[in-house]
Amino acid sequence: MDKEKRIKELETVIECNARHVDELNELLYSSKIINSSLDLYQVLDHLMELAKKVTRAGASSALLLEDDKLCFVSASGTKSAEIKRQYLDKHEGIAGYVVQTAKPIIVDDVTADPRFSGKMDKQSGFVTHSILAVPLRIENSVIGVVEAVNKVGGGVFGDDDEHMLSRLADFAATAIHKAKLFGDLNDLFLATIKALANAIEAKDPYTRGHSERIRDFSVSIAIELGVTGADLKNIEIAALLHDTGKIGVPEAVLRKQGKLSEEEFGEMKKHPVIGAEMLVSIKQLHEAIPGIRHHQEYYNGRGYPDGLKGEAIPFFARIIAVADTFDAMTSDRPYRAALSDDQALGELKKCSGEQFDPECVKGFERAYNKGAIISQKKTLHPLAAQ
Amino acid sequence: MDKEKRIKELETVIECNARHVDELNELLYSSKIINSSLDLYQVLDHLMELAKKVTRAGASSALLLEDDKLCFVSASGTKSAEIKRQYLDKHEGIAGYVVQTAKPIIVDDVTADPRFSGKMDKQSGFVTHSILAVPLRIENSVIGVVEAVNKVGGGVFGDDDEHMLSRLADFAATAIHKAKLFGDLNDLFLATIKALANAIEAKDPYTRGHSERIRDFSVSIAIELGVTGADLKNIEIAALLHDTGKIGVPEAVLRKQGKLSEEEFGEMKKHPVIGAEMLVSIKQLHEAIPGIRHHQEYYNGRGYPDGLKGEAIPFFARIIAVADTFDAMTSDRPYRAALSDDQALGELKKCSGEQFDPECVKGFERAYNKGAIISQKKTLHPLAAQ
Repeated sequence: MDKEKRIKELETVIECNARHVDELNELLYSSKIINSSLDLYQVLDHLMELAKKVTRAGASSALLLEDDKLCFVSASGTKSAEIKRQYLDKHEGIAGYVVQTAKPIIVDDVTADPRFSGKMDKQSGFVTHSILAVPLRIENSVIGVVEAVNKVGGGVFGDDDEHMLSRLADFAATAIHKAKLFGDLNDLFLATIKALANAIEAKDPYTRGHSERIRDFSVSIAIELGVTGADLKNIEIAALLHDTGKIGVPEAVLRKQGKLSEEEFGEMKKHPVIGAEMLVSIKQLHEAIPGIRHHQEYYNGRGYPDGLKGEAIPFFARIIAVADTFDAMTSDRPYRAALSDDQALGELKKCSGEQFDPECVKGFERAYNKGAIISQKKTLHPLAAQ
Repeated sequence: MDKEKRIKELETVIECNARHVDELNELLYSSKIINSSLDLYQVLDHLMELAKKVTRAGASSALLLEDDKLCFVSASGTKSAEIKRQYLDKHEGIAGYVVQTAKPIIVDDVTADPRFSGKMDKQSGFVTHSILAVPLRIENSVIGVVEAVNKVGGGVFGDDDEHMLSRLADFAATAIHKAKLFGDLNDLFLATIKALANAIEAKDPYTRGHSERIRDFSVSIAIELGVTGADLKNIEIAALLHDTGKIGVPEAVLRKQGKLSEEEFGEMKKHPVIGAEMLVSIKQLHEAIPGIRHHQEYYNGRGYPDGLKGEAIPFFARIIAVADTFDAMTSDRPYRAALSDDQALGELKKCSGEQFDPECVKGFERAYNKGAIISQKKTLHPLAAQ
């Protein structure tokens, strides 16, 4: 009988251990998934799925602290993060309470808890019953809250769920923090080159805001032509920097009101090469630089600096050429007023196959028709295109 | 007797499970440690410690693939990574074999294995007996190799060790990859603003290489004054960008050979404000911008643009002011030859407390005496300081 009892005991231990092993394997798997990306929304999407899974919850959500607000950044693996960003005050709702206390909390019935804010339910039509909320912590500071909502099957969340979600939140907080650092550095990089490009183009009084518009137009065309990921980032960089070589063109030429002499035009024509050479030593820009050097090439081979023709012209450069010319045509110049969008689009089509790659012109037209191209003059002359 | 046997069986299972739980906990802990940083060398240091621990090895090393070479980047938690970088050919040694096969390998006695390269032992004086080497993989490509070397107690590595090190390598590869992406982006950012700052200063024919020297000098002074981490990066950015506002100064003023008229000097004096305003909208540069705006302030309040005095002048700006003036004095100007380093240092000390913060001058002097300040003229006039 004693032996019988001992066997039962040992079997219980084994069962318990097996659950523990499952749990650890689940956490290990979660850690791997969550740490696999440096993209904030991807990290959050993973977190939403895993939070539901480890706690057997019907839904999940994540809120991050931003300037004293608790910003609702993701829910149940949907991409709502990128679209609608709702806010709670820093200490509002169950999540706000978790921020205050830096401790997990289980609420079996939110209708009986005065801390619960019905805001999200009202806005989304979702009905919250129970919540398990745990802090996302980096060292000793709370950066946000992750919530598991409504136990599947209608029960309530238990200590096991709290334990699992807390351990998951541990990984997630680090991954979120790193993704934010990466995103911040990327924003800093783009904002700084934008600021410097703006300053350089301010030397040319006719091109204010040009680099940013060319960036927007080029990215829109590229998206139409199926460009994605790192290529999209490279075209963004190339477009922002395409005219920075103008820093090497004398002010007297840049600012001249009348027509340029042949010699002056020769100076002006150096800017794509100067721009490319300024950046040539930067390894990570090798994909972007051809877009800068060749944005003045013509599809028929009559452009500069190298007289490249057709597909020999780097793809990014063919895109930027279309964006650049459309912006030039729809901006005022000392010797002519801006063309209307329709007139400019007509010119692009007329020069398609000569100055421009026909595919890029088509891509431009599709982007334009979707409203993705806003010319400088559009808002100033709302009737110009009539 | 059957029950006796059953109890023994169950006890063995429990023991085995306990080891498994320990192993999983160890891996979970490892994952957390390895994923905690975005700094490549910190990640590698963690990896070295953990690799030794999970395999009970006497030493460990990591090699990363770089341009067809296997670069020895870290060993046993020492910081050798930053100092000496030794190379193997892509397919040389045990590590090279792992790169070729993308599979782990155990070598019980390296002296009996013709694949072993004794290069590292020869260079370091270390004696390798046994090796367990596993690939660092991102998706399907091998990015490097991690090795556990010499089993503690003199035994050989077993399948358990291989299993643990492989799982560890799994986390480590992702963490290494992310740290590299972050480092690359940071390099890209600094290289791009350096290129643009260089282009802008090329407008002023007397200041070639100025921004980079000011960056180097300022960072050296800052280190002497105990600046570290993010602050050091901010001073680097501020120093690189301190003169970018010159983009807003007319060429005729920048390039004038003679003395500037009062009006021209008024134009020139706008550059710190122009530079700061170019960048003011960039949130992540808020710490750096005061260094740009105020680098022409005097410690006695007689500088520009705001006539700030003493400690009211931002610390970074006080550092840059010293670096900037030393470089100006030790560079040729159309109206005078460069001063010797000693003469320039004498001037700094003479103006300490008037134009300059005495602490910054002292920091500069200490950095100079350590050889951390290399003036433009130093190599051209080796005897100038005699």
